[in-house]
Amino acid sequence: MKPKELREKIRRGEFASHTSGVCHNYVQANLAIVPKEYAFDFLLFANRNPKSCPIIDVLEAGKVESALALGSDIRYDIPLYNVYKNGELTGRLKDLGDVWSDDFVSFLIGCSFTFESQLVKENIPLKHIEQNKNVAMYITNIETNEAGLFKGPVVVSMRPIKNELVQKAIAITSKFPNMHGAPIHVGNPMEIGVENLTTPDFGESVEVEEGETPVFWACGVTPQSVAIHSKIPYVITHAPGHMFVTDITNEEYLSLNIER
Amino acid sequence: MKPKELREKIRRGEFASHTSGVCHNYVQANLAIVPKEYAFDFLLFANRNPKSCPIIDVLEAGKVESALALGSDIRYDIPLYNVYKNGELTGRLKDLGDVWSDDFVSFLIGCSFTFESQLVKENIPLKHIEQNKNVAMYITNIETNEAGLFKGPVVVSMRPIKNELVQKAIAITSKFPNMHGAPIHVGNPMEIGVENLTTPDFGESVEVEEGETPVFWACGVTPQSVAIHSKIPYVITHAPGHMFVTDITNEEYLSLNIER
Repeated sequence: MKPKELREKIRRGEFASHTSGVCHNYVQANLAIVPKEYAFDFLLFANRNPKSCPIIDVLEAGKVESALALGSDIRYDIPLYNVYKNGELTGRLKDLGDVWSDDFVSFLIGCSFTFESQLVKENIPLKHIEQNKNVAMYITNIETNEAGLFKGPVVVSMRPIKNELVQKAIAITSKFPNMHGAPIHVGNPMEIGVENLTTPDFGESVEVEEGETPVFWACGVTPQSVAIHSKIPYVITHAPGHMFVTDITNEEYLSLNIER
Repeated sequence: MKPKELREKIRRGEFASHTSGVCHNYVQANLAIVPKEYAFDFLLFANRNPKSCPIIDVLEAGKVESALALGSDIRYDIPLYNVYKNGELTGRLKDLGDVWSDDFVSFLIGCSFTFESQLVKENIPLKHIEQNKNVAMYITNIETNEAGLFKGPVVVSMRPIKNELVQKAIAITSKFPNMHGAPIHVGNPMEIGVENLTTPDFGESVEVEEGETPVFWACGVTPQSVAIHSKIPYVITHAPGHMFVTDITNEEYLSLNIER
């Protein structure tokens, strides 16, 4: 299925589940919508934390079509949305038709699917994919660089990597500074404030076995997490796993980033 | 002289001239100040035009100290400022004490001095430096990627490069994507809408001689030029050549950028 077909199905209410594995090899994006009043601080926060917050598109106040998805409508083309008021989840919506305001600025943020496709392509096995699980994510004791109202800890995703492949995984991901980039930590989780790998803050636990090293990358959930916890009056996000699917392929996106 | 000493001299009114060649090897920055209402659009414009607009620091509304210059005060540490109202130059000020508002957001933008130091260090002679001239700048027919109110043509700087060194100059500057990066054009000026190299729009003309190729890089004057021409009510910039001098060296800045 092409992304355009998927978005049309979602819009007609014919596709309502998560998007993992759908439209293989097309870039999927996290969504964060904030009122214009907070948009400058949020964009600045993303700029100051490029590893956690790879912004892939910004839809200016009131705009609903992403440049990365022709004919798209950000109000209708995601299967499920979460609405947060003052930091509390107050609604789960199938579309934003009723709550939309021309004051809303939408941010599309890179997602680990893009990042992982590159690792798998270069023969780094990823256990959570093999086990059909969501990646394990942890809140660390590393502070983000704050901007205006937005501050809070970095969220990381952890992938167990075979010891002999750790350097290769670092080398590959270093090539994509605008898509999380090199790991922010390798090895002992305690050093970044993660007490127990078996109880992730988000996602599902994946065992680190003998001969494997836990490798931690900055995670695109960070900006959403920080936006929610800053308790601004209104934040809308996609519901976990229910992503915005763009028309560009992972390769196109990564090569664009290198050129920049 | 260390940058801190220079900034203190400027603040005391003991240094009032341009900063070219002062505090050799420390990063100097262009300044653009806009009211908070326009800050989101301006930052988004910079993000969408990274070659022309390498943002090196943002001072949030009302803040006056740059993280790149301990104890600095953006209102007093530049020798001369230009004030534009609705796109017209209305004042040239020695400091911003009387006009400052807590609503002002300050953007520090990379300057070609950083970029050029790298070329010279790698033995690419730059004629305008040898001739003690300001670099030649031209308004092109290439449109920037617009954001909100901000749109307009890319401004380029041109440097005549010996034919046999052009590939090397491209290779060196490609390594610094966040500091203008690779040239946006090499060769015939007409192709980017520049009719006559001897009459630059800004700076001073430098002759392209036999055995040399004109090489064009996106120029950090672009965002200022666009901010002024968008006719927003209020924009403050440094006066040409009168830059903000930071505490970080060119090498520190360029390696920071690579890591990002």
